[in-house]
Amino acid sequence: MSTETIIPADSASPAETVAALSDEEIFASHQGGKLSISSTVPLASKRDLSIAYTPGVAQVSRAIHANPELAKTLTWAQRLVVVVSDGTAVLGLGNIGASASLPVMEGKSALFKAFGELDSIPLVLNTTDVDEIVETLVRLRPSFGAVNLEDVAAPRCFELEEKLIEALDCPVMHDDQHGTAVVVLAALTNAAKVTGRTLESLRVVVSGAGAAGIAVAEILLTAGVGDVVLLDSRGAISKDRADIAADPASKKAELAARSNPRGVTGGPGEALLGADVFVGVSSSKLDEEHLKLMNHSSIVFALSNPDPEVLPEVASKYAAVVATGRSDFPNQINNVLAFPGIFRGALDAGARRITPAMKLAAARAIAELAEDDLSADYIVPSPLDPRVAPAVSAAVAAAVEAE
Amino acid sequence: MSTETIIPADSASPAETVAALSDEEIFASHQGGKLSISSTVPLASKRDLSIAYTPGVAQVSRAIHANPELAKTLTWAQRLVVVVSDGTAVLGLGNIGASASLPVMEGKSALFKAFGELDSIPLVLNTTDVDEIVETLVRLRPSFGAVNLEDVAAPRCFELEEKLIEALDCPVMHDDQHGTAVVVLAALTNAAKVTGRTLESLRVVVSGAGAAGIAVAEILLTAGVGDVVLLDSRGAISKDRADIAADPASKKAELAARSNPRGVTGGPGEALLGADVFVGVSSSKLDEEHLKLMNHSSIVFALSNPDPEVLPEVASKYAAVVATGRSDFPNQINNVLAFPGIFRGALDAGARRITPAMKLAAARAIAELAEDDLSADYIVPSPLDPRVAPAVSAAVAAAVEAE
Repeated sequence: MSTETIIPADSASPAETVAALSDEEIFASHQGGKLSISSTVPLASKRDLSIAYTPGVAQVSRAIHANPELAKTLTWAQRLVVVVSDGTAVLGLGNIGASASLPVMEGKSALFKAFGELDSIPLVLNTTDVDEIVETLVRLRPSFGAVNLEDVAAPRCFELEEKLIEALDCPVMHDDQHGTAVVVLAALTNAAKVTGRTLESLRVVVSGAGAAGIAVAEILLTAGVGDVVLLDSRGAISKDRADIAADPASKKAELAARSNPRGVTGGPGEALLGADVFVGVSSSKLDEEHLKLMNHSSIVFALSNPDPEVLPEVASKYAAVVATGRSDFPNQINNVLAFPGIFRGALDAGARRITPAMKLAAARAIAELAEDDLSADYIVPSPLDPRVAPAVSAAVAAAVEAE
Repeated sequence: MSTETIIPADSASPAETVAALSDEEIFASHQGGKLSISSTVPLASKRDLSIAYTPGVAQVSRAIHANPELAKTLTWAQRLVVVVSDGTAVLGLGNIGASASLPVMEGKSALFKAFGELDSIPLVLNTTDVDEIVETLVRLRPSFGAVNLEDVAAPRCFELEEKLIEALDCPVMHDDQHGTAVVVLAALTNAAKVTGRTLESLRVVVSGAGAAGIAVAEILLTAGVGDVVLLDSRGAISKDRADIAADPASKKAELAARSNPRGVTGGPGEALLGADVFVGVSSSKLDEEHLKLMNHSSIVFALSNPDPEVLPEVASKYAAVVATGRSDFPNQINNVLAFPGIFRGALDAGARRITPAMKLAAARAIAELAEDDLSADYIVPSPLDPRVAPAVSAAVAAAVEAE
C-alpha cells in the first residue's frame, strides 16, 4: 500500500508543497485514534486523590448544587465543544455512517484544541432522525458548552441546526455551512480588493446548493453583495422555477426570494456570463468554456475537495484570483481559519448563540490579517498562521459585546 | 474559607496521613475542570493536517465504511470508557443533579487514565428516566467502547444496568455496585486468612441494601460465603418479611431467597449476634454495644464515606481486622483498586459483558497482591500501588479467555 497516493498524480502542480501521502503513513498515524484524555490535576499521592476525588470533590459538587452557575468555572463542560455527526455527508464520501465518520470528528476535535485551545470530544450518532439527535443533545446538555455540527447532509442539516439552536442555550454551529461561508467571505473581501472591486458591485455565482452553498449565498447577501446566483443540479435557482415554487418552505426557496435579482435561468453557461466570481462548493466540474464567459479579472474559488471544480493552472488562464480548498495550492480556503476562533470567542464572551454579526466579524478579522501582504496569491492567511484564531476569537467576542 | 476543613476534626486519628484539605485548595484545583483533550498526532505542518484531517483522513473513513471492524483500531472509541451519571446518588450527597455530579465524573475519568491507561469522558444526563438513558447511549454507541455507570440511585440503578447490558454490545458496569463488591471480596478473602477462617465458614452481615449492599451480598454468595444477612432500614431482609414478600420481583426479594439461611429477624443487634463480619455500606452508625455481640476475632468493614459507620479506634477494641473507605486509616477499601483494571482487561480481551467470573478473578488478583505482606493492617494493596491495575486487567482478560 505504501506506494499508493491519495492525491491524484494528475493534480500535481508547481505550487505543490505537501509531498504525496502514503496509505501506510496515514493508517499508522490513526492507530488507536487521534485523541487522548489527561488529567489537569496530579493523581500521584493519597492527598491528590483526596482533592480530585473523594472526599474533596464533594465540596465542589455541593457548591455547584447550591449555585449552578459555578459549573461554568468548576467543570470542563463550559469550555467543551462536542463535535456531533450522524455520518450522512462525510467529506466527499457521502453517507458512510457514524462509525466511519469518527476519524474525521476526532481530527476536528484535535483541531479545536490545537488552534482554539478548547477541549472537544466527538459524539457520533447512529440515528439520522433530527428530533432524536436534538433530544439526545438536550439530555446531555450538562456535559458540554457548545455544539459543532459536522458532516450532516442537506437539507436535514438546516432543520437540525435550527432545532438545536432553539433547544439548547449554548453556541451551536454547523461548520460545513458557516465555517465555509465565513472563510469564503473573508477571501472574497480580499479578492475584491486585489481586483479593484467592492463587495457590493460583485456578480457572484455559487455552484452547489447544499449546506455550504446555501450558507455562502446567505453570508454574501448579508455582507451586501448585490447579485448572487445559486446553481444546483437543475441550474440557476430562481423563485419562478417550478420545483422551487412548489416547496416554498425550503432553504432554496428562501434564498431564491433574496437572490438572482436579474432572474437568470439556465445552467452555468447562462449564470457565468459576465459574472465576476465563481464559488464552487459541489463536485460539478467547471468547464474551461464557461470560464471564458466570465468578466475580465474574474475570481474563481474552486473549493471541492480533494478534486477542485477546475484546476488552478486552468482557471488562472482566465481568472485574476484563484483559490481552492487544498493545502498544495495558494489561497487555501479552509474552515480551520474560522471555527476554532468563532467557538472560542463565543465561549469567552458567554454567548448563547452564534449570530450573523459574529460571523461577519470573524470574516473581517481573517481578511484583515492578510491585508498587509495582499496579492492575487495571498488573499487569506495560512491555516497554520498562529495569529488567526486569537484574532477571530477577539473579533467574535467583541461582536457579542456589541450586540 | 482556607481554614475550613472537610475531614471532621473529631475523626482525626493516629493513622492520619493526609493533612486536612482546605476548601481553598480544593476549589483552586477544580478551576476549569480536571480533564484535558490532546491530539496524539502532530498538527504543526500542512502535511500533518493532510494526514490527520483532509484529505488523508478520508482513506481511514473509507476503510471503516468498507470494514466496520476497523473502527476498533482506527478510532479512539474502542478504548474509550464513558462515565455516565444522572446525578441521583452522588457520593454521600444524594440526588444533586447531573451538573453538580460532573466534578465527580471528571475525577473518575481522570482515574481511568491514571490507573487503567484508558481514555474516558464523563456524560451526565439531565434525565432520570431509565429508558431515556438507555436510548441515549444506544444512539451514541459508535462513540465509545464501554460504559461505567456511576452514582445512579437504587433501585433504579439495577434496572438501568440490566437494560444497558441488554441494549449495548460492550462492557457495562455500575461501579457503585460491582467495583465496591469486588474490593470487599478481595479484602474479606485476606481478612479471613488473617483471622484463620475460610470464606465458606463466615457469617457476614451487610448493612445497607442499596446499590453497594446488594452487589456485595451477591458477590459474597457467588464466592461461596454460606451465611449472609442483609440489613436495610427495617432490619434483616428475609423472604418472609411482609414488604419483601409483597415485591417478589425486587432485587431485595431476589437476594432474600438466597441469603439469610437461618431466617434471622430483627435489627443489627439480632443480626450481629455471633457474626464474624460486618460490612457497612450505608450511613447507619454501628453501636459499640452491637460490636460486642460479634464473634471473637471479628472483621469490621465500615465503608461509609467520609464518616465510617464506626471509627477504627472504637472498632479495633473488639475486632481483629478493621477496614474503611478512607485513605487516612489502614486497609482502605477503594473502588480504584478494581474498576480501572476490570475495564482495561475487558476491553483488552474484547469482552462484550462483564461477568461474575471476571469480577471474581479481579477480586482474587487484588487479594493476591497483598498476600506476601498480609497482616491485620494490610489486607488490600494501596490504591496507589502500581501493580494493581495491570494484575487486575490480566486476571480479567484471562477470565474472558477461559469463558
